[in-house]
Amino acid sequence: MTNVLDKGFIELLEVFGDDLTVVNAARVSFAKQSDEMNSKDEKLIEYLASHHHITPFFHPQLRFRIKMPIYVAREWFRHGIGFARNEVSRRYVDTVPECYNPTDIRERDQHVKQGSKCTNIEENELVSQRIRDIQNELIEKYKNLLELNVAPELARGILPQSMYTEFIETGSLSAYARLCNLRLDPHAQYEIRQYAQALSDLIEPKFPVSWASLTK
Amino acid sequence: MTNVLDKGFIELLEVFGDDLTVVNAARVSFAKQSDEMNSKDEKLIEYLASHHHITPFFHPQLRFRIKMPIYVAREWFRHGIGFARNEVSRRYVDTVPECYNPTDIRERDQHVKQGSKCTNIEENELVSQRIRDIQNELIEKYKNLLELNVAPELARGILPQSMYTEFIETGSLSAYARLCNLRLDPHAQYEIRQYAQALSDLIEPKFPVSWASLTK
Amino acid sequence: MTNVLDKGFIELLEVFGDDLTVVNAARVSFAKQSDEMNSKDEKLIEYLASHHHITPFFHPQLRFRIKMPIYVAREWFRHGIGFARNEVSRRYVDTVPECYNPTDIRERDQHVKQGSKCTNIEENELVSQRIRDIQNELIEKYKNLLELNVAPELARGILPQSMYTEFIETGSLSAYARLCNLRLDPHAQYEIRQYAQALSDLIEPKFPVSWASLTK
Amino acid sequence: MTNVLDKGFIELLEVFGDDLTVVNAARVSFAKQSDEMNSKDEKLIEYLASHHHITPFFHPQLRFRIKMPIYVAREWFRHGIGFARNEVSRRYVDTVPECYNPTDIRERDQHVKQGSKCTNIEENELVSQRIRDIQNELIEKYKNLLELNVAPELARGILPQSMYTEFIETGSLSAYARLCNLRLDPHAQYEIRQYAQALSDLIEPKFPVSWASLTK
Repeated sequence: MTNVLDKGFIELLEVFGDDLTVVNAARVSFAKQSDEMNSKDEKLIEYLASHHHITPFFHPQLRFRIKMPIYVAREWFRHGIGFARNEVSRRYVDTVPECYNPTDIRERDQHVKQGSKCTNIEENELVSQRIRDIQNELIEKYKNLLELNVAPELARGILPQSMYTEFIETGSLSAYARLCNLRLDPHAQYEIRQYAQALSDLIEPKFPVSWASLTK
Repeated sequence: MTNVLDKGFIELLEVFGDDLTVVNAARVSFAKQSDEMNSKDEKLIEYLASHHHITPFFHPQLRFRIKMPIYVAREWFRHGIGFARNEVSRRYVDTVPECYNPTDIRERDQHVKQGSKCTNIEENELVSQRIRDIQNELIEKYKNLLELNVAPELARGILPQSMYTEFIETGSLSAYARLCNLRLDPHAQYEIRQYAQALSDLIEPKFPVSWASLTK
Repeated sequence: MTNVLDKGFIELLEVFGDDLTVVNAARVSFAKQSDEMNSKDEKLIEYLASHHHITPFFHPQLRFRIKMPIYVAREWFRHGIGFARNEVSRRYVDTVPECYNPTDIRERDQHVKQGSKCTNIEENELVSQRIRDIQNELIEKYKNLLELNVAPELARGILPQSMYTEFIETGSLSAYARLCNLRLDPHAQYEIRQYAQALSDLIEPKFPVSWASLTK
Repeated sequence: MTNVLDKGFIELLEVFGDDLTVVNAARVSFAKQSDEMNSKDEKLIEYLASHHHITPFFHPQLRFRIKMPIYVAREWFRHGIGFARNEVSRRYVDTVPECYNPTDIRERDQHVKQGSKCTNIEENELVSQRIRDIQNELIEKYKNLLELNVAPELARGILPQSMYTEFIETGSLSAYARLCNLRLDPHAQYEIRQYAQALSDLIEPKFPVSWASLTK
């Protein structure tokens, strides 16, 4: 389990296949098969990845348990093809929520397509504390709504988008490579890059040749 | 454009195909074609739908512009297969947000799988007003964070999940039928049912035979 | 490995997950988890399947090696969503092909939507032998084209559609259930039903509760 | 309708959207909209395509009627994501089939991954005629099987893989760009390249900016 941000994590639950799965899916075209990875197999994987022959990379699968802030999850879930997901529902769950409280409050970048600068605002500590106060206050107000017998599916409406959510996700190696390539880009938001990096670090040892080829 | 909830809407932008598209996609199996719907074609559509031969219903497409609260959108987006979506991003947009403020505050149902009762809580008006106050306060605090030069991608973290978002969505007739069948179910949350109903009412006149067959 | 038809087979290569995977994907909605299947879990699976809540069934995956006649594979491959496939290519492979030679030559059914009767034609043996002769002759002519230096990608054009092909396929439990439900139907062609049955028999012991619920 | 090979064709049936559809799907992120394409919109499309931001290209759709040889269709259908297809079925149709008869019989290339040389074999005309004879003979034998009351679903087993099939296909602009990029590659088989080129020529005038950006 890799901790991400202040209270999030990514946990690799199960892996289906390895580099050899990719090789043998590709070699079936030639009615051949490898029993063990060799240097020819490595070259094959590199060739497949660099020529966008991605179907062999659809066969391996990975399953994760992930906890991330809702506004990060909303970007993460835009990657739909090749993924299965089931998520905690605040229609049914009314435990005390947790929120992401950043300690580095990044400045706005004047260039709108760039989400933020890498420098913090002047009143960094003060604002970080203020955000925590707002979050705590909202959690108190949420509890209060529940005490007044408000249905959780409505009460959740006041909870902030920095609230953590949790989900189980199964995806193909190909789908994860595409996600990481887009979300490790320096234009991606800092928070989602931390998750993409943690994911990449968990996948790499399981598919060393494929992952190097797909993400370079 | 159909208004939904207090500030949301569904607008049908464009339609691709009609009932005849379904018929001719199916009739290609028999190397046949219809130029105009007749009663045989209607029976064919009913047969296809009732026997789960859904591929002909993948060909027609519809495009919508939709404005809905984030916590509703998060359920809506669980429907991924057969949909394309692009959504407003609060990394780039920092206009004053709008929130869903329910006037009927439904009671919790003791049965957890049922999200709410159809009756309102006792202090209905008071709580509705309190929710509005919380939302307005959060919007003020959000503006204040922006004034302190906080990057919008971080400032959005305090905005509530009842905030409205907007997106453009293209989906196949088959995908919309599946969405509506699940989200018009009485177990679905009241708010998402309003959107599913508005959607269904917009689709029905464009595909009268197919829609009746797919959603019965 | 299960033999199917005269020279085909289905081999289960690898399984990803079990009934508990389905249960825990579903229970994440309630922030719960099971460590071992119990009777509540079984009821949950039945509830999910009967209410078309299929997302938890997307997480488990299975991988097969399959050898089937081309005209059967062409129907099989119509099932695309949730599957990854890599197939032998006769652009690259020019070994002697094998063909499906039916020994029961079913009669035409007068009802066109029914592909065949379950009775054989009168001259059953004679025609079965004739089909084998045609297949063998074509294989000889194919070899002859190769001797004349014709590119395999063109020479294959004379090979019959009853020729066997081989492929590796990864699919989700949900995708296989949908395939089997459609292809075990008595309206499906006899040959594809044999493959669907063999598949179903291989999946059932790995996911006893889910498979029973999804295919009833 | 564009003729392809000796008896095939691609016919563009209907188009859903234009370059502006792509622009407005992308601009929704910034809560903006264009009413008419301008030079900024063109640059946006180029930016999206070159940075692999492909979701806006999922919204436009095209529908085609296509007639191609079975062995070409089998490669074509490997492109599954983003496509809907319905095809003529020889379980139900027993009209006289047509076959692709190449007049240029390309030589085998010694490099196995290259399907053929661009030069013809020595006995080009003779072999082209021989292939036609084999095809005609098979069609006669097929008719004969039907006369003996063999079910069409079995009789089709002797028909050659160069037989033409016909289908209706709906795909997203993004899916067609991916198909064309792979199938216009000089390593792709000559026959499929003809279809990819015809397709590209039909799409280009409908989405001039997007198509240029996606296929360069």
